[in-house]
Amino acid sequence: MRVGFIGLGVMGRPMATHLLNAGHEVSVWARRPESAAPLVSAGATGCASAAEVARRSEVVVTMVTYGHDVEAVAFGPDGLAEGFAEGSIHVDMSTISPGLAREFAARHAERGVGWIDAPVSGGDVAAAAAQLAIMAGGDAATLERVRPILSCFGHRIVHVGEAGAGQVAKACNQMLMVSTIQACAEAMHLASAHRVDLAAVHTALMGGSAASKVMEVFGDRMVRRDFAAGVQARLHHKDFGIFLGDAVKLGAPLPIAAQAGQQLNALMAQGWGGDDTASLLKVLELSSGGDRD
Amino acid sequence: MRVGFIGLGVMGRPMATHLLNAGHEVSVWARRPESAAPLVSAGATGCASAAEVARRSEVVVTMVTYGHDVEAVAFGPDGLAEGFAEGSIHVDMSTISPGLAREFAARHAERGVGWIDAPVSGGDVAAAAAQLAIMAGGDAATLERVRPILSCFGHRIVHVGEAGAGQVAKACNQMLMVSTIQACAEAMHLASAHRVDLAAVHTALMGGSAASKVMEVFGDRMVRRDFAAGVQARLHHKDFGIFLGDAVKLGAPLPIAAQAGQQLNALMAQGWGGDDTASLLKVLELSSGGDRD
Repeated sequence: MRVGFIGLGVMGRPMATHLLNAGHEVSVWARRPESAAPLVSAGATGCASAAEVARRSEVVVTMVTYGHDVEAVAFGPDGLAEGFAEGSIHVDMSTISPGLAREFAARHAERGVGWIDAPVSGGDVAAAAAQLAIMAGGDAATLERVRPILSCFGHRIVHVGEAGAGQVAKACNQMLMVSTIQACAEAMHLASAHRVDLAAVHTALMGGSAASKVMEVFGDRMVRRDFAAGVQARLHHKDFGIFLGDAVKLGAPLPIAAQAGQQLNALMAQGWGGDDTASLLKVLELSSGGDRD
Repeated sequence: MRVGFIGLGVMGRPMATHLLNAGHEVSVWARRPESAAPLVSAGATGCASAAEVARRSEVVVTMVTYGHDVEAVAFGPDGLAEGFAEGSIHVDMSTISPGLAREFAARHAERGVGWIDAPVSGGDVAAAAAQLAIMAGGDAATLERVRPILSCFGHRIVHVGEAGAGQVAKACNQMLMVSTIQACAEAMHLASAHRVDLAAVHTALMGGSAASKVMEVFGDRMVRRDFAAGVQARLHHKDFGIFLGDAVKLGAPLPIAAQAGQQLNALMAQGWGGDDTASLLKVLELSSGGDRD
């Protein structure tokens, strides 16, 4: 298939490479040409603009950071909308607000362009291994058309509902994940206050009903005090800004997610946004006088 | 081995039965004789008091609800302490405060009696299947002596540290578990406010980084609105009372666990203590005008 890819960062680069390896005809554009260079060397066609990517592609995938990035790429000057033929499809895999996803879907629909929001879970490790979990929102028939593309990124593709529903599932995922990281941090902090060996507590907890992927990975980082980035906390902070704002508009009380958001604010204030979200343990230690180990 | 068992409730009854099936010589006593009757029919020796159980046993296991129950059984009139020979061991598998566990260990030690705190995770299903996760605190040599007993209840036995350390791990487990249930409830509540299908969100989340045993089991109950008790919420409420009190004494800030405790308070105020902890979803709905599905 003729596929465009825009957003060749830590997630997008391996994903675009999977498309090339699967034999798709891939076109790329990047604001900074050096981001596109490795893909072009590997066989992708470098374009001068997003509009040119759209002209050359049946389906264009975007994987950028912010909602305003998606808007600029899709509807800004030289954007996708200027190049899309009727019947093309824009698959946005960024994490943005459900409301923006619905708005972009409607704007494309006016010109006969399809839309799928398909944010992912799993991070750069799963992106590299083509094992991303994909949460898709949009029209079912449109999703079927792009399924061969999405399958290059991971095999757990869940159609959650109409446009925006993929972003709702992603918001739920991020809320649950960071709240669980915070709960792990509190468990470790309580064990530490009791002067009990954290590695033993971690092992005990991994056998019990509270076991989770988060406890396994982030709990272990806390035990080893390894706060180098696996997932940069600033990205979680960004996601919390989106869905906590939505919760205000929707009148949905989210007491512990809101509290976890406050802890992320404190983390950012310490300048730890480039560190791993396991740094939430250090935030707790700040307010009780430091690491007790 | 000659083993006593006191506390023949929903957890204790299958556990004592496993001891009999493994060929141990089991003595039992219960405040209400009808609780002991099924075990006596199955081959256990019924005793007239906890003291008599202690006289007949090398090791006595207790599995009761509250710290004051353990104290009454161990140190009250006709209690274990009156019957224990020097070198006997009291294995308490109840969930009580780490401080009480340390105190009971010290009181037994004065008379040459050993102590292990060995609270469990997994509930009645794991108790019946002999697959409990066991978090042990106490002297390592004493733990080795009772390992053949504990192995009848489950094979994941972690020695966390000295007396009380098993209870610290259990507190961490309960904190993490209920906080995660609350986070699941908030995720479901947000999805519902967005009018997205909860079953699809649950499926999507189970494939992502936020997946957990709690999300699988309690998230599913929330989707199906099945609030009949798997785990009675009043037991989680009891556990939160213990460790949040400890956190005050230790000066350990636990922001989301404290908030989850508030939600459990609201649940209890609704009279839902006998229902499953998945009822935390209903608590959220109360404050935003009911189920939005």
